[in-house]
Formats: sequence, C-alpha cells, structure tokens
Amino acid sequence: MRRVPVDRVMSLVGTPAVEAALAYARRHRERFLDELADFVRFPSVSSDPRHADDVMACARWLTGHLGGLGASEVRIIPTARHPIVHAAWRPAKAKPTVLIYGHYDVVSADPLQAWRSPPFVATRRGESLYGRGTSDDKGQLFAHLKALEAFLRTSGTLPTHVVCLFDGDEELGSPSLGMLLASQRHAFEADFVVVSDTPILGPGRPALTYALRGLLSLEARVAGPRNDLHSGQFGGVVHNPAQVLCDLVSSLHDASGRVAVAGFYDRVRPAREAERASMVRMGPTDYQVRLDAGIDEAWGEPGYTLFERITLRPALSVNGLAGGHAGPGPKTVIPSSARTKLSVRLVPDQEPEEIADLLQEHFERLAPTTVRVDVTTDTAVRPFLADPDQPGVRVAREAYRRGFGTVPAFLRAGGSIPAVGMLQEALGRSPLLMGFALPDDGMHGPNERLHLPTFWSAIETSIWLLAGLARIM
Amino acid sequence: MRRVPVDRVMSLVGTPAVEAALAYARRHRERFLDELADFVRFPSVSSDPRHADDVMACARWLTGHLGGLGASEVRIIPTARHPIVHAAWRPAKAKPTVLIYGHYDVVSADPLQAWRSPPFVATRRGESLYGRGTSDDKGQLFAHLKALEAFLRTSGTLPTHVVCLFDGDEELGSPSLGMLLASQRHAFEADFVVVSDTPILGPGRPALTYALRGLLSLEARVAGPRNDLHSGQFGGVVHNPAQVLCDLVSSLHDASGRVAVAGFYDRVRPAREAERASMVRMGPTDYQVRLDAGIDEAWGEPGYTLFERITLRPALSVNGLAGGHAGPGPKTVIPSSARTKLSVRLVPDQEPEEIADLLQEHFERLAPTTVRVDVTTDTAVRPFLADPDQPGVRVAREAYRRGFGTVPAFLRAGGSIPAVGMLQEALGRSPLLMGFALPDDGMHGPNERLHLPTFWSAIETSIWLLAGLARIM
Repeated sequence: MRRVPVDRVMSLVGTPAVEAALAYARRHRERFLDELADFVRFPSVSSDPRHADDVMACARWLTGHLGGLGASEVRIIPTARHPIVHAAWRPAKAKPTVLIYGHYDVVSADPLQAWRSPPFVATRRGESLYGRGTSDDKGQLFAHLKALEAFLRTSGTLPTHVVCLFDGDEELGSPSLGMLLASQRHAFEADFVVVSDTPILGPGRPALTYALRGLLSLEARVAGPRNDLHSGQFGGVVHNPAQVLCDLVSSLHDASGRVAVAGFYDRVRPAREAERASMVRMGPTDYQVRLDAGIDEAWGEPGYTLFERITLRPALSVNGLAGGHAGPGPKTVIPSSARTKLSVRLVPDQEPEEIADLLQEHFERLAPTTVRVDVTTDTAVRPFLADPDQPGVRVAREAYRRGFGTVPAFLRAGGSIPAVGMLQEALGRSPLLMGFALPDDGMHGPNERLHLPTFWSAIETSIWLLAGLARIM
Repeated sequence: MRRVPVDRVMSLVGTPAVEAALAYARRHRERFLDELADFVRFPSVSSDPRHADDVMACARWLTGHLGGLGASEVRIIPTARHPIVHAAWRPAKAKPTVLIYGHYDVVSADPLQAWRSPPFVATRRGESLYGRGTSDDKGQLFAHLKALEAFLRTSGTLPTHVVCLFDGDEELGSPSLGMLLASQRHAFEADFVVVSDTPILGPGRPALTYALRGLLSLEARVAGPRNDLHSGQFGGVVHNPAQVLCDLVSSLHDASGRVAVAGFYDRVRPAREAERASMVRMGPTDYQVRLDAGIDEAWGEPGYTLFERITLRPALSVNGLAGGHAGPGPKTVIPSSARTKLSVRLVPDQEPEEIADLLQEHFERLAPTTVRVDVTTDTAVRPFLADPDQPGVRVAREAYRRGFGTVPAFLRAGGSIPAVGMLQEALGRSPLLMGFALPDDGMHGPNERLHLPTFWSAIETSIWLLAGLARIM
C-alpha cells in the first residue's frame, strides 16, 4: 500500500506567477492544439526503418519548438537508432532541477483501414483529438512543454531548472537511452524525474503510478520446407510450419488462462493483502476494466481481479501472427515458414533474461524435429517499483489535486516504460509517474485520441507541479 | 488398379501429317518460348481484384493468339469474375471433337522476395523457364496450342475438331464454368476432353492421372475486442484472438498427424490392396516425394506411404495466418482479430459441404464465449475418379509413349482441378488428365518453372494425341 500519510500532505497555494501561468494556459488552448497537430503530423514510427527520416524530421521540429521556448541548451543527440532530443533551462538562481522524460516516437498506425480519420492528421471529434501519438506520448509530453511556456511567457522564467529528455526509441525499448545516461550523466542530473506516459482512471480521476510491469518482447519463427509448396501436391506429408506455430503458441497457456511455461511464475512476488485491499478501493472495478478494453467477457488467470491481472500479475500476449497467404481469396500453399510476435509483461521479481530462457526451453522441448524454430528477443525491460517515500510524491499528489480538482489514486499500471528503470538507476531518483492518458485512449490501437479536458488539466497539473517542486529544496 | 489391358493398347504410326507437324514443332522451339514469355508477362492473378485488368488483358492476348492460329470461332465469354476464353476449329469433314481445357489465371506471386528473377518476366536458367504460370498452367496449355499450330502450318488443317476452353478463374475454383457449361452445353460438346494441369513423375517419366483430390478452402476468423489494445494496459484480461486462433488451428490435428475433426474420415473409401500395390510399383517412393517437396523429414497420417498420403488420403493444410502486428520490430498490441486460411484435400466419398459442416461444428464446439468465430467457404470441389474404360485412355497412353519415349504410369494426383468434375458432369465424358508438370516445378510457390525438355515432349505428345484420337471414331 503506497498511500501518502495525511500528515505529510502539503498544500499548494497559488502565487501570482502560478496564477498568471494558469490564465495564459487557458487563453491559448486552441493554439496549443494547432501546435500539437503539427507535432502529430510526423509519422515518427520508430520500429519501421522506412520512417527513419520522419522520426528525424519530428526530432528537428521538436528542437525548433524547444528553441522557441528559449531553452538555454537544445540539441539532437544521435544514437544507433533514432535521435534523443535534449533541452535545458537553467535560470541563474539555485533551484532544484526537474527532468521531464517523454518520447516523440510512436507505434505503427496499422491497421490503417480501422481509422476513422488519417492517423497522422490530428482530427477533432467531440471532446477528443484523434491521431497516432496524441495520447502516447506526444500529447502527454506536450502538456509539460505548454506549462513551461506558460511560465516563460508570463514570468519570463521557470520556478525550477528544467531538463527535457525526449526519446525517439521508446517503443523499441529505449535501446540507446541507458548508454547515453551512462556516458553523459552530468547533463541529466536532477532532483526530480517526471514521466507522463501512463493512464489515469478516467476523466477527472487522476492517478499517480507507483509500479510498472516489465516487458520481454520476442519473435518466434518456424521454418519448414525451402519454398512454399502446393498443398494439393504435398498436403499430408509436410509438417506445416503454420500449423506447428499454432501448436507452439497454443501450448503457452493452459485452459484456465495461466501461462503454461515451466517456471514462469516461480519468481512472482506474492501480492500483500494490504495492497490488494488498496487496489480494490482505489483501482478500477472489473466492470470498468471491461469497459475500458471494450470487451463483454473477461479472461485470464483465476483468483485475481481484472485490475490485479493487468498490473500485479504477469501476462503473455500474442501480438501478431504471419505466414503463408493472407491476401484476398484462396491460395492453397503450404507456407515455408510462419512467425509470431509475443510479449510478456513481467512483475517483480521476474527477470526478462530468465523468462526469455524459459520460453526458449519451452519451444525447444516442444518443437518437432520436422521444423526449425528460432526465437529472437526484441525488448527486455525489468519491472519497476517506485520509492514511496521520495519527497516529490507529496507535491505530485497536490499538483494533481489542483489540476484535476481531486486527489489522485495511487496505483500500479500494466504497461512498461523502459526508460523509467534506466533513469532510476542512472540518476538515483525514483521517477514520478504522472500519467495523463485515459484507459480508453486507444494507445497502440486505431483511433488513438487525446481527451481535451484531461489535456487542459494536465497542463495545469504540470504548472502546479513545477511551482510545488520549487518549494521543496 | 487402372492399368490398361495389353490387348487394348493401340500403336500409333507416324503419318506424313504427323511427321511434318513434329518437324515444325522442333524447328520453332525458340519462338514458342518467346511467345510463352509474352503470355507469362500478364500478372493474371485471379484471386486479387487489383489484377482484374491484367486478367482481362491476358484473355485478350490469348484470343489474339488463337485468332492468329485460324480458329473458326474465338470469343471472350464474360463471367461474374474473370472471362473464359473459347475457341474452336471445325474442319468440314466429320471428325471427333477434342475439347482442351486449361487455365490462364495464376496464383499470387507472393512472397516476391523469394523469387530469384521477377515472377512475370519469364527467365531462362539452365533447362528451365522461370516465371509464375510457366508450369501452372500457361505452359501446359500452351503445349497444346503449339501442337495445333504445328498441324495448321504444315497440313493446313487439324486431325480432329478442336474446342479450347481456357478458364480465368481456375485458381478460385472455377466458379463460373459450371454455369457456362450448363447454359451453352452445345458449344462444348466433345468426344474427348483433355486437361493438362497435373504433375508427371519426373523428367522422361510421364503419368496419366486417374484420380484427383477434391478441395474445400475456407477462412476462419476470430474476433475479440473492438480495437487492437495495448498489451501492457490489457494483457491478462482479454482473450487474445490470435491465441484463440492458434488453439483452434492446433486442435485440427492429433499428435500422430491425423485430422482430429470428428467424423472427418467417416466417408473415406478404404484403399483396395491391388491399387496400393500398383501405387507402390508405379508411384514415387517416399524418398522421391521428400525430394520433390524439398524436405528432410516427412510427417503425416501413420500407416500410409507418402505417395498414398498425398493422393489416396485426405489432408488439411493451413495456407495462411494473419493477425496483429507482423511488420518490423515489436508492437505490443492485443489484436482485435486474427484469421487463418485453411484447405482440405478430399478423397472419395468425402463431400465438401459435409466436411465444411464438420469443421464448422468443430470450431463452434471449441470456440470460447469470449470471442466470435466466423468460418466462410471459398472453394468446394468434389474428388474425381476417371472412367478407366474410356477409349481415349489407350490413345493417351500411346501418345505419351511417342512424346516421351516411355509409357506413362497410371496414377492418382493430390491436387484438385474444379473443372474436371464439371466437365465430366456436363459433357458426359471422363476427362483425360494428361499432365506435363514436374513435381518440383514450384507450382504455387516462388521460382515456379517449366522444364523445357518436358515442354518439347508435351508438344509432341499433343501432336500424337490428336492424330490418335482422330482414328478412334
């Protein structure tokens, strides 16, 4: 249970600088959306090499925007994949430093035909702005930039030093961030680290996240005959790689919904009863989780609430299947190979490398001698648990209260942010996971959207946060 | 066992007209290949609506070619899908009529990257001409046209009446042919029906096919949440459609390699021992089947030779899998749906509709309530058994002997030609299945090819066939 004791809650009072910043932010909402639309226009899909130029163009646009906000340093840091954008404001006075981490890369917009409006043309419908990245994570990152702008354009300065670190590889598992933090640690030293890339509970229901699941993503490929074969000529004597792939995928769960890989649950830390009780009190109900997911009937590991299943318990998902003919009409081939993309969400104390080994052993044990099975790991992220005693938590709680009009829940989240563990390790600060996404924002799916009232509250929360953190040191 | 009794074997003797035609065919081989390359250039992929114009252009080219050979009638018959090409030569004298059925449509060339040369640019390497359709079925069809040309350009006439019927929808299951034959039966009446769309045993090892497997092709689709979901946010509570699809596909076979759909084998006619003995004597060995398939280790139903498994026994193949993210890099989604394309090769007395019902029941019984499963049938073709006593068989045997220098084996084939049953039913003639493809021609796969020495023999076989059939009536 991670509730902040009442006696440690501070209260934030509006100074003239804060009031001016809030008024500015309210006045310029429409322009902010136009700028966010410019940001969304770049198809900065980090996983697809064909979009490498778009990712770079997006990084350039972002540095331009940061430069326009008067950052004392702005730079594009090249990496082996996509660049990291770095900016800093260091007013002369000694102040605490707040590092804001976000990412400007997005996942692919496939399947395109499922979008009601083009994914890279931000489109307003009702109270939402639709487009890939509007929520994950361009919109959430942008809320902080607009808070900075509100201070800078009204008071001419910021309440704290601010360092921005915007990743171009987050959706790939931030492969370059760790190296950058190790080699240039001094540039990113901070008293507080803020990451906004998690969902809250719903409109007007903020949540401060204290735990993230880890991530292991991998691809398994089954290869059989050298070429695709005619299924009339050879159907019945060739062990079909697509069929073997299905056998292997099917073997990963038992009938009850538990992962059936030997040893998979061995290191899962049992949930404490106090935390489970807190999750029931603060977290979404089973009904709400089903609603957010858009499903009528849930599934999964017995003995846990739905919220526990997506946060406290590990899960293995099939992210994709491919093999043979999937185009229009029939084509009666025996495909020469078939592939699946899998991802595992991990909880303490599961280690990605160990789980990868267990999966490898599982496939080796079950793979028939008629085919070859290759497993490659894409992403490995350890699960994260925040330090509940860090001083920033009180301010974050109060900032949410001022921004949203209600205190936040303290909750686990089911997703994974590779950077969070890296930042914690490199900078010795436990990041404040102050999300502004709604659970039904459609992150990673079609028709991703940003809920505008939540976005306005996010900007105001960030204004209160900076003002509040300035008072801690 | 379908061996032709020795006393009924006729011997074909070369007349001056035959000798002139053979000499002509040998002289013009290089030009024939240039023309075949023109024919292959059209990507006449009938399954893909985007290639509809290419299929039509190919039909036009074919009618132009037939017109150039002096056919008395040439027409493009429109259908609900792609056109059927019809041509006829009816010399004044009363002669038997030979109907030659073939198809000018092809299957898709995917995966393109597996081709060593572009699929629609016929490319000669060694003794083979590579390209989609060179073997299935443009090349085999073309062998007959060149036999006709050889007679027409040397004797000015043909030994028989000839009707050509070239399908543009064969790879879709010939959906329009049955209706055409029913409505215009008179135009296609024939004493003999010849279809060249089956494999022989190898170079110089011809085979007359007396049985084909039937075909049921279908698509099963599993639908879950309305949209793709973030696997971090919802992994653990949503029954993943790709996972359910794998469970369903995996349930279709038992561990021994038999189809595990209840009732699937109920109507399979047991093999007669005499036929099995003949198949061992005349058919390919297990080693040869593995070699043709390009596999080291076979798989399938216990208790049968590999040749029996691909001809005498039914088989269920996974032709394709699709769902979720299969592009480069990871994308951690729970796909909203997943699909598989399946095909079943049927043997007497299995009925496609009944097997479709059994599969439907199988899926309904196993599908969990968390998803929706839809099954749609694409193609339904009944298995075929030829009439062994028809008089054309003796001539076909002898024509092969003259064309290839050796008598053909009498064999079952594993593939399906929807038109064969339709022609048998509509015209009351049991088609002569005189194939000219090699088992390793790569039909339906990448790097499909035509073995040129076999192609030359095919043209000569067709010349001998027409001359021989002329003598029967």
